[in-house]
Amino acid sequence: MSTTEMLQTDPLAQPTAYRVAQLSRDDRLFHIILAQQFDSELIETLCRLAEMIRNIADTKRGNQFLRSLLAHKRAMLYFIQPSTRTFLSFSAACQILGIPYNEVRNPSTSSEIKGETEEDTVHVLSQYFDLIIMRHPMEGFAERMAYKLNASLRPIPIINGGSGKDQHPTQAMLDIYTLLRSFEPRLADRVRPMLSGNPFHGRTIAFVGDLKRGRTVRSLCYLLCRYSGMRLVFVSPPELRMGEDITEYLDRHGIHHEECDDLNAVIRDCDAVYMTRLQDEHDKAGESKAIDYYKYSLTLEMVERAKPDLVIMHPLPRRAELDVRIDDDPRAKYWAQVRNGMWMRAAMIAYIFHTDATIIDHYQTHYTT
Amino acid sequence: MSTTEMLQTDPLAQPTAYRVAQLSRDDRLFHIILAQQFDSELIETLCRLAEMIRNIADTKRGNQFLRSLLAHKRAMLYFIQPSTRTFLSFSAACQILGIPYNEVRNPSTSSEIKGETEEDTVHVLSQYFDLIIMRHPMEGFAERMAYKLNASLRPIPIINGGSGKDQHPTQAMLDIYTLLRSFEPRLADRVRPMLSGNPFHGRTIAFVGDLKRGRTVRSLCYLLCRYSGMRLVFVSPPELRMGEDITEYLDRHGIHHEECDDLNAVIRDCDAVYMTRLQDEHDKAGESKAIDYYKYSLTLEMVERAKPDLVIMHPLPRRAELDVRIDDDPRAKYWAQVRNGMWMRAAMIAYIFHTDATIIDHYQTHYTT
Amino acid sequence: MSTTEMLQTDPLAQPTAYRVAQLSRDDRLFHIILAQQFDSELIETLCRLAEMIRNIADTKRGNQFLRSLLAHKRAMLYFIQPSTRTFLSFSAACQILGIPYNEVRNPSTSSEIKGETEEDTVHVLSQYFDLIIMRHPMEGFAERMAYKLNASLRPIPIINGGSGKDQHPTQAMLDIYTLLRSFEPRLADRVRPMLSGNPFHGRTIAFVGDLKRGRTVRSLCYLLCRYSGMRLVFVSPPELRMGEDITEYLDRHGIHHEECDDLNAVIRDCDAVYMTRLQDEHDKAGESKAIDYYKYSLTLEMVERAKPDLVIMHPLPRRAELDVRIDDDPRAKYWAQVRNGMWMRAAMIAYIFHTDATIIDHYQTHYTT
Repeated sequence: MSTTEMLQTDPLAQPTAYRVAQLSRDDRLFHIILAQQFDSELIETLCRLAEMIRNIADTKRGNQFLRSLLAHKRAMLYFIQPSTRTFLSFSAACQILGIPYNEVRNPSTSSEIKGETEEDTVHVLSQYFDLIIMRHPMEGFAERMAYKLNASLRPIPIINGGSGKDQHPTQAMLDIYTLLRSFEPRLADRVRPMLSGNPFHGRTIAFVGDLKRGRTVRSLCYLLCRYSGMRLVFVSPPELRMGEDITEYLDRHGIHHEECDDLNAVIRDCDAVYMTRLQDEHDKAGESKAIDYYKYSLTLEMVERAKPDLVIMHPLPRRAELDVRIDDDPRAKYWAQVRNGMWMRAAMIAYIFHTDATIIDHYQTHYTT
Repeated sequence: MSTTEMLQTDPLAQPTAYRVAQLSRDDRLFHIILAQQFDSELIETLCRLAEMIRNIADTKRGNQFLRSLLAHKRAMLYFIQPSTRTFLSFSAACQILGIPYNEVRNPSTSSEIKGETEEDTVHVLSQYFDLIIMRHPMEGFAERMAYKLNASLRPIPIINGGSGKDQHPTQAMLDIYTLLRSFEPRLADRVRPMLSGNPFHGRTIAFVGDLKRGRTVRSLCYLLCRYSGMRLVFVSPPELRMGEDITEYLDRHGIHHEECDDLNAVIRDCDAVYMTRLQDEHDKAGESKAIDYYKYSLTLEMVERAKPDLVIMHPLPRRAELDVRIDDDPRAKYWAQVRNGMWMRAAMIAYIFHTDATIIDHYQTHYTT
Repeated sequence: MSTTEMLQTDPLAQPTAYRVAQLSRDDRLFHIILAQQFDSELIETLCRLAEMIRNIADTKRGNQFLRSLLAHKRAMLYFIQPSTRTFLSFSAACQILGIPYNEVRNPSTSSEIKGETEEDTVHVLSQYFDLIIMRHPMEGFAERMAYKLNASLRPIPIINGGSGKDQHPTQAMLDIYTLLRSFEPRLADRVRPMLSGNPFHGRTIAFVGDLKRGRTVRSLCYLLCRYSGMRLVFVSPPELRMGEDITEYLDRHGIHHEECDDLNAVIRDCDAVYMTRLQDEHDKAGESKAIDYYKYSLTLEMVERAKPDLVIMHPLPRRAELDVRIDDDPRAKYWAQVRNGMWMRAAMIAYIFHTDATIIDHYQTHYTT
């Protein structure tokens, strides 16, 4: 079957390996769409790159170097789904790399009202820009557009900034970067080819809350499957259990996972706890109002009983499930997690434009001894 | 009658030649408001400049040169009428030239709600910026503001990015640039003083659709009158015929034009076909629903019978009048037309700020042999 | 009482001197929140700095110098209250200094809808940016956030771009800059330690209109108290008199002030007249409709009877209280006042980031003889 014939059938129904290949070019990521595109080598390459960019950005001169890298490119932030945090994270990443960007955020002010298909809109954007960062309420939209652009006269990369309830690969990458930074000090200076040892070996990580509908935990699970030897604990209301597609995926990759209805029962064992809020915007008829979400909350008292180097994460925004009194505890990493996202997204954009080698050279020349 | 006395009467009621003079300074365009400001020499100067900028922008180093040109200026994109495409085209053009810009797009969030006149708003903008690019639903608004600023202590240029149903001169310029690029290979390298010969001589160009209310075709006709020897065919529903002001203007300039009710009858003769959508947002009572617009559509079958070097254009957004199956045909130039707009707008902004000579020097030094 | 204990009580209820100290660091302003933070030395430092930046920005080369100053920083314009003018003034100031910025303007598109507190939002912003410029409808919000950030792991400065009906310190600074520019020619070249003499000595300044609810005049009064020997005249409807908190503050600082119901009676004496519009958006039940505001208007006829060097100011937007026919009179300084705001805000941002000495050096090397 030729490429054309396969694309004529629904490309999203193809095997993941085939889709990952279509999203690559010259043995590198071309588009960033799926968490499954990242193997452990790429995860570590990007985490180290993020760490180098962060260190380089510490000085005015380093910033000048970074801003010279992509000033000749232009990025489009096509954010049809409301999102302040992810939007600002990507735009700050663009600013760090000196890449001018533009945005489309409110489709009601755009020409869609004149009757244009969104596919035509994306084709138009591909004429003005060199990269589209896309957040879209429709599952699979970014991926479909990636294949459309592949077949066009001006193929440009797409980065998925969150698609429906489905994938959010850059969030997953910033989450694993936050874990790696905590588990592996001096990440940037570790030498290739690989981090020695397995930073996740023997770690217990609890995921807490609305695991059924929160895409961040789902995406992160794909990445954790690139490692081994850890114990995952899913703590959720029975109605909001982690989906079977993910638990089966974990099984296939030999990752130990278990369910638990009580965070108190496991908090002492945890090396990391990943809190999430109730995703009640996905309710059909207010069904989650009946859930006592307090049971899936982290309090200061619980943190006091936990390990001294516990990593407390939350993708934010938070509600009552994460006690504000924890903010002053050094184990609270959720603000750092926000900032990590900016560096990781800068790393991903730099990588997409093949400037990673230049950054590594610069870092090794100026920042290592 | 003194200048002051003339302006006291309605300036838009003055002869076109007088208005064109008021929009100029030092024998150059100062404001860009009307398609009638462009003679064939200026059309070709700007098309060549757009082509040079496009070539220079091909390299990182060339981009660096371009971005250094206007980094000391600031532009305001005052887009009161919704428009994603034109907005992004201008903002990308600003980014290419390194000119920082800002935008006012939604007057409801602005201080107009506190009771300011729009004239005061423009005066305020003229204090912060060095150029205003203006899209406005009111015919003549940009032109009136140009005269107001001429009389102020801080006159700055205005570029008309579309005013009401009336003029859209930068669209007309990108359209004629698209035609010239197709009819004249190696446009940038043609030497002054003029393109040898007349690229439009003997060409048949069809304009199809809602010609009565589409301002793009109207503006382009003003530019085509700077040339001769072509045949224009207007293919439209009887209710949406090209306005008499334009057909009389063509007559006065000796341009052959004819009407036709059937695109099929002329498609074989065409060197270029310019499709347009139904402008039903201007309907008063849904009157255009009765029109069978399918008769004014271009299908893949029709394209198969056309000349091998036909130029297919559309200002976008499109609807059913332009068959999506044509997208893969090399004669489809409407995506390229979008990108041409970005380069042409960069050329116009560069020209307004007197940097055209610097660009030509750079091009001739680095890109010609 | 320790710092922590004091902050546990309401920080805004503390003495002004204590709050001013909390907003400082290393004997400089860290946050800009209150007009009371500026003494006459700082006022003059910033006015001279604004004047230097304006002169340096006159050339392309000077602009290049300015844009290199803060390109390694990032600013957030958090403008929850609608404001086009102040927003554009700050963003142009950022562009002059080369500082990339981003904006949050419409909270309805942000994650607040997912249930985040605004305090969490500000903490998130502090992870991405190096400065937050904040306009907020709630009195004291910017100040409270400044104290919160002081106590966080990543304290960054906040500039108050207008908070409720209360303070608008950058507007007050641009107003006093406009007065100083008019009263003191060659401001930038005056040498330290101080302007010789007192530029306000013997001056009569009238404030006209809705003095009760207009925060610009209120903030400016705090600054004028740093000088002496002037006469202030408050011309307002009886219902909209200047608040007693301000008149008592003026009394404590020995500033002569008087009330007057008729602008005609004082216009001949005035060295400056500061017009303001009716702030009827603060009406509870349309009570200001009963006021004859025409009595608090400035007409061309009144200006004709005024001093030849009268300074006419207005914070804009204006309505009928400021006759448009005055616009052509050289004594009209309200457009210049707008532009002064841009330079003053650039000066304040430059100062906050400790680049004032670099700018002064550059100015003295290149622009003085």
